[in-house]
Amino acid sequence: AAEGAPQEAIELYVDTATRQLFAEPGPGRQRLGKFAQVTDTPAPVAATTAAPTVATATASSTAQPAVAARSASSATPATKAWYDKIGIRGYLQMRYNQEVGGDAKDLKSPGDRYIGREQGFGIRRARVVISGDVTDKMSIYIQPDFASTPTGSSTGNFAQLRDAYADLWLDKDKTYRIRAGQSKIPYGWEDLQSSQNRLALDRADALNSAVRDERDLGVFFYWTPKEIKERYAYLVKSGLKGSGDYGVFGVGVYNGQGANRPDRNDQLHSVIHFSYPFKFANGQYLEVGADAYSGRYKVTTGSATIDGRTFTPTVDAPVAGSTDRRVAAHVVYYPQPFGFQAEWTVGQGPELDVARRVVRTQSLRGGYAQVMYKFDGDYGSLMPYAKWQTYRGAAKFDTNAPKMQVDEIEAGIEWQPSNAVELAVAWANMRRTDVSTAPYRRIDGQLLRMQLQVNY
Amino acid sequence: AAEGAPQEAIELYVDTATRQLFAEPGPGRQRLGKFAQVTDTPAPVAATTAAPTVATATASSTAQPAVAARSASSATPATKAWYDKIGIRGYLQMRYNQEVGGDAKDLKSPGDRYIGREQGFGIRRARVVISGDVTDKMSIYIQPDFASTPTGSSTGNFAQLRDAYADLWLDKDKTYRIRAGQSKIPYGWEDLQSSQNRLALDRADALNSAVRDERDLGVFFYWTPKEIKERYAYLVKSGLKGSGDYGVFGVGVYNGQGANRPDRNDQLHSVIHFSYPFKFANGQYLEVGADAYSGRYKVTTGSATIDGRTFTPTVDAPVAGSTDRRVAAHVVYYPQPFGFQAEWTVGQGPELDVARRVVRTQSLRGGYAQVMYKFDGDYGSLMPYAKWQTYRGAAKFDTNAPKMQVDEIEAGIEWQPSNAVELAVAWANMRRTDVSTAPYRRIDGQLLRMQLQVNY
Amino acid sequence: AAEGAPQEAIELYVDTATRQLFAEPGPGRQRLGKFAQVTDTPAPVAATTAAPTVATATASSTAQPAVAARSASSATPATKAWYDKIGIRGYLQMRYNQEVGGDAKDLKSPGDRYIGREQGFGIRRARVVISGDVTDKMSIYIQPDFASTPTGSSTGNFAQLRDAYADLWLDKDKTYRIRAGQSKIPYGWEDLQSSQNRLALDRADALNSAVRDERDLGVFFYWTPKEIKERYAYLVKSGLKGSGDYGVFGVGVYNGQGANRPDRNDQLHSVIHFSYPFKFANGQYLEVGADAYSGRYKVTTGSATIDGRTFTPTVDAPVAGSTDRRVAAHVVYYPQPFGFQAEWTVGQGPELDVARRVVRTQSLRGGYAQVMYKFDGDYGSLMPYAKWQTYRGAAKFDTNAPKMQVDEIEAGIEWQPSNAVELAVAWANMRRTDVSTAPYRRIDGQLLRMQLQVNY
Repeated sequence: AAEGAPQEAIELYVDTATRQLFAEPGPGRQRLGKFAQVTDTPAPVAATTAAPTVATATASSTAQPAVAARSASSATPATKAWYDKIGIRGYLQMRYNQEVGGDAKDLKSPGDRYIGREQGFGIRRARVVISGDVTDKMSIYIQPDFASTPTGSSTGNFAQLRDAYADLWLDKDKTYRIRAGQSKIPYGWEDLQSSQNRLALDRADALNSAVRDERDLGVFFYWTPKEIKERYAYLVKSGLKGSGDYGVFGVGVYNGQGANRPDRNDQLHSVIHFSYPFKFANGQYLEVGADAYSGRYKVTTGSATIDGRTFTPTVDAPVAGSTDRRVAAHVVYYPQPFGFQAEWTVGQGPELDVARRVVRTQSLRGGYAQVMYKFDGDYGSLMPYAKWQTYRGAAKFDTNAPKMQVDEIEAGIEWQPSNAVELAVAWANMRRTDVSTAPYRRIDGQLLRMQLQVNY
Repeated sequence: AAEGAPQEAIELYVDTATRQLFAEPGPGRQRLGKFAQVTDTPAPVAATTAAPTVATATASSTAQPAVAARSASSATPATKAWYDKIGIRGYLQMRYNQEVGGDAKDLKSPGDRYIGREQGFGIRRARVVISGDVTDKMSIYIQPDFASTPTGSSTGNFAQLRDAYADLWLDKDKTYRIRAGQSKIPYGWEDLQSSQNRLALDRADALNSAVRDERDLGVFFYWTPKEIKERYAYLVKSGLKGSGDYGVFGVGVYNGQGANRPDRNDQLHSVIHFSYPFKFANGQYLEVGADAYSGRYKVTTGSATIDGRTFTPTVDAPVAGSTDRRVAAHVVYYPQPFGFQAEWTVGQGPELDVARRVVRTQSLRGGYAQVMYKFDGDYGSLMPYAKWQTYRGAAKFDTNAPKMQVDEIEAGIEWQPSNAVELAVAWANMRRTDVSTAPYRRIDGQLLRMQLQVNY
Repeated sequence: AAEGAPQEAIELYVDTATRQLFAEPGPGRQRLGKFAQVTDTPAPVAATTAAPTVATATASSTAQPAVAARSASSATPATKAWYDKIGIRGYLQMRYNQEVGGDAKDLKSPGDRYIGREQGFGIRRARVVISGDVTDKMSIYIQPDFASTPTGSSTGNFAQLRDAYADLWLDKDKTYRIRAGQSKIPYGWEDLQSSQNRLALDRADALNSAVRDERDLGVFFYWTPKEIKERYAYLVKSGLKGSGDYGVFGVGVYNGQGANRPDRNDQLHSVIHFSYPFKFANGQYLEVGADAYSGRYKVTTGSATIDGRTFTPTVDAPVAGSTDRRVAAHVVYYPQPFGFQAEWTVGQGPELDVARRVVRTQSLRGGYAQVMYKFDGDYGSLMPYAKWQTYRGAAKFDTNAPKMQVDEIEAGIEWQPSNAVELAVAWANMRRTDVSTAPYRRIDGQLLRMQLQVNY
């Protein structure tokens, strides 16, 4: 049922000559209004007599009836107001891509559905985050994206979950926790970094092709020592574009078919994660780490026409799905002011063998390297960057898991006039397989890309 | 248009020696920061001259221009801040079912789509509630579920409404109200109890098969005397798992095809509801009541293959739909510490007659009984329970309204270390018809079921 | 990651005899509770030594360790609490239409999907608005509708974006701004007015057929002088049902295929907008203005059977789409107490030519006129109104862009017992083409229409 919690408040009066504050009106006093109480209910005078030197006989004689009545019901411990338990924030990304060379009109990229033919403005992400420390031992994080499209719908911008998890803290210092729900899989540094903070427009395919939407449903354990928690927090708040706290060490199990997809076998994927942010004497941060995951993935197949032959590939794998396992390593030298960032992954996964018309486990490899520089001034923050990425391996999420070849260079600049607004412009030279449609051609093209992001 | 309401605030300074508070800086004073004003705008001194002994001539001479200007526009009554009008809260349920015997892999249950073959973790409910007393006479309640899937979509976890209604209070004591919108149909006690509070993992099918998602769109009238309102509130807040306030008496009309479904005839369903929570001298609560509804329901039919014959059944009913009416009774002896709960329903509804290949009105019956015990201690609250349920009647929501036979025993225990976290483990012996697919076989199987729920 | 921002707060104590406030307990003092800090963190005493006469030696000796520790990390500028940066509000509209004459059961109207055969109650709009002035230079506005249905889904009431935009303010007085994102296209006065404020149940088709859901994705520039901003704000707040502030002058570019639809060509639509609210000496407001837009629209075609012939029309237009351009003018004499409102539009757009089986650009025209009166009393506000509308032109959003002929009269009354509740009853005589299904018949019928709206 709908119920509204009553708010405690007091009226304040200021003596206009002395500027002293009073709790009731009087000569020369001006009313300032009602002021809000946060987390606590007032203790009645009778209750404070337990304290040795505090209460006096005069107190009760002047106590107002309203206060007494209020305090009678305040024996229970104080509870936080709802808006102190949870907070709401979010961000909105709007894009525009302009073809500037090659076959750019035929390009397709998993990271941006507004690349390609007949495109105008696009809302890439419209995120709303509901999060908070509900109790000392439980925090929640619910993040829908309002730029999602259900399969088969001709209109988009529906709300679909990205994150929906709880952190159950196991110790007072919040260094050990169990995370349960749909959350990011701790594999790959850039995958863990929020798109709100990423400098490049899209994630590198080599790492992003491991986990659909970076997330899955499962149970995870994370450990972060107190000092390292503060480092992770600083690396985000400072504008250095950190990844947030996914533990110095993390381990977990999850369904394995990707965010918002039902599981399709009776086996769970498992993942292990290490990352450590070193802090040098001069204040420079350097983060290094490695991750690995393993499981069985069920590929979706469908009819494809390649070189004049139409076929639906068979999948050469047990009923539980194809072997799907990768290891990755990352190094991030934070932009203070010059920065460098690189990741590499190798592994095995299901991939279409066109010649044999079969999907079978094959090896894959790829990664990226990025350099960036952070200028700070009255104009805000300016960060030019250049990123090179490569990938040779399957796009397992796509029908028939076609082989994906990516070689891409992007150079751009992000301008943050304030914490709330970011404008990025980039030039990209893409050479990538169109994995969305057979015959899975490789396209070359150049794009001018723009993004406006607002944070709230 | 986007607009932000200006917030009134004052700066406070404390004298570090005397700890007295001041409204402006001075020697020996330390600034404490700005403090928020709640609901009120300051009254100018001139306005307070109406009060007998308060105002003095000196006051107006020191009044600041800013204050005077501000108060000129504050003749209108104070309005509440948005976060005092509405509040946001919710809960998240994550499940895992493990087959432990019989044909458990073939089981299908309307209450949990994560039962059956090839299942991993599942988000059963991801609820966000926006609610509040907007005025003294109107309260709202908007509850989307972020774990819903549009028909035909291969990805899930979209936001879809469960509740969206307003309560229009007819008297000052809020004992009479009209509820308009999509809300729970007051039929069946367990159907009215929130899933946030229910002990057993799913609702009993006999009662839950009456109203799709427990809700429909309509207009309702509820009456609850003041004393009973308090009892209903207590039964939820105390952890006794009450159903909330749906009136000692309720009556209403609604579309009848279920929540989030368009109506399919020009007739409304009607419902009547009684429930009374007795309180004994020793503090023990006992709730008893009965409900009834009646209307015409339009069944969806489709091609089915049973015993080698493929057919689409005809519906033996007027164009407005099949007769659909039930009565139900409930008794709840609240767990203080031992509890008992039972419901039974009988009625008539559309049901597939396989031999005649026709859907026609047939009788139905079923219910459940549950015992539970509430242990409270330093570890929080522990509630073991056992529930038996049976149903013989149609699954009218499913294509062709097949006959559903359910006999189920569930025994489990729920642990609430705090109000924010609940972990439930249960063993279930299910014997139920798979009503989702012809030939509508009856399956026997045993499951180990787990649920983690977090409340925020 | 989930993080909760710590809230600054102080405890206040009142001397029960003098009613003076103190920041710590003492004899004769009663605790009032913790009080919230708004936007600011306390300055440590050490920091304020820079200020000439303030700090004293005694200060540090009495400073509490907690305060000192807190202030050490508060060198960064103060930030607003999340609930002061953004606010949440919304409204809910519930409808019921009753056929009272003619072929009302066969009527179809783009403005209300609950008109027609086999209808019961309907939720027309379930809006939640997240908005606020995030910084002095950026405001956001995110408005999902929770009464939307993805294409192909048999259940509805999913959350889909209506608005998702940011206002970037270019000057201190907020008279110049760039609006980026999905927002209302500044064409037509009634289209800009919120449905929360509109008196008639639906918008006039002549103007509403220009922009799908009144919105599109683009970039806009608006200019509103300070005095006019106040007028626009007053016209909404006063209950006079203004349109909000879309600038005295506005200009923009947008995709052109409608809200939540991907663009389908490489051209943008462009729009220009003027509107001015005059204020007469007696306080009466009069708003006049004009708008125009131009672009190329891609029509969707499909198989249709008309007069026994089945065909899919061809589109006689370049690959970028059909010419789509209109001009419109509006005049609004606000109801103080008598009001008058009218709009007219002419232009060209794609329209089905049944004889030639081709969609080609044809001229269109239409508009509406409305009279209304505002009674205010103890019962709240009562507004009777009558509206006539006509349209001759295409329904370009619908498959094959059939010609739409609308002649409609609606007379009704809206009762607002408070700002939070509105009840409207209207009688409508509709004569309109059913543009949803070939052969696109024109239907005549009378309806009794009811709407309950609650605002929160």
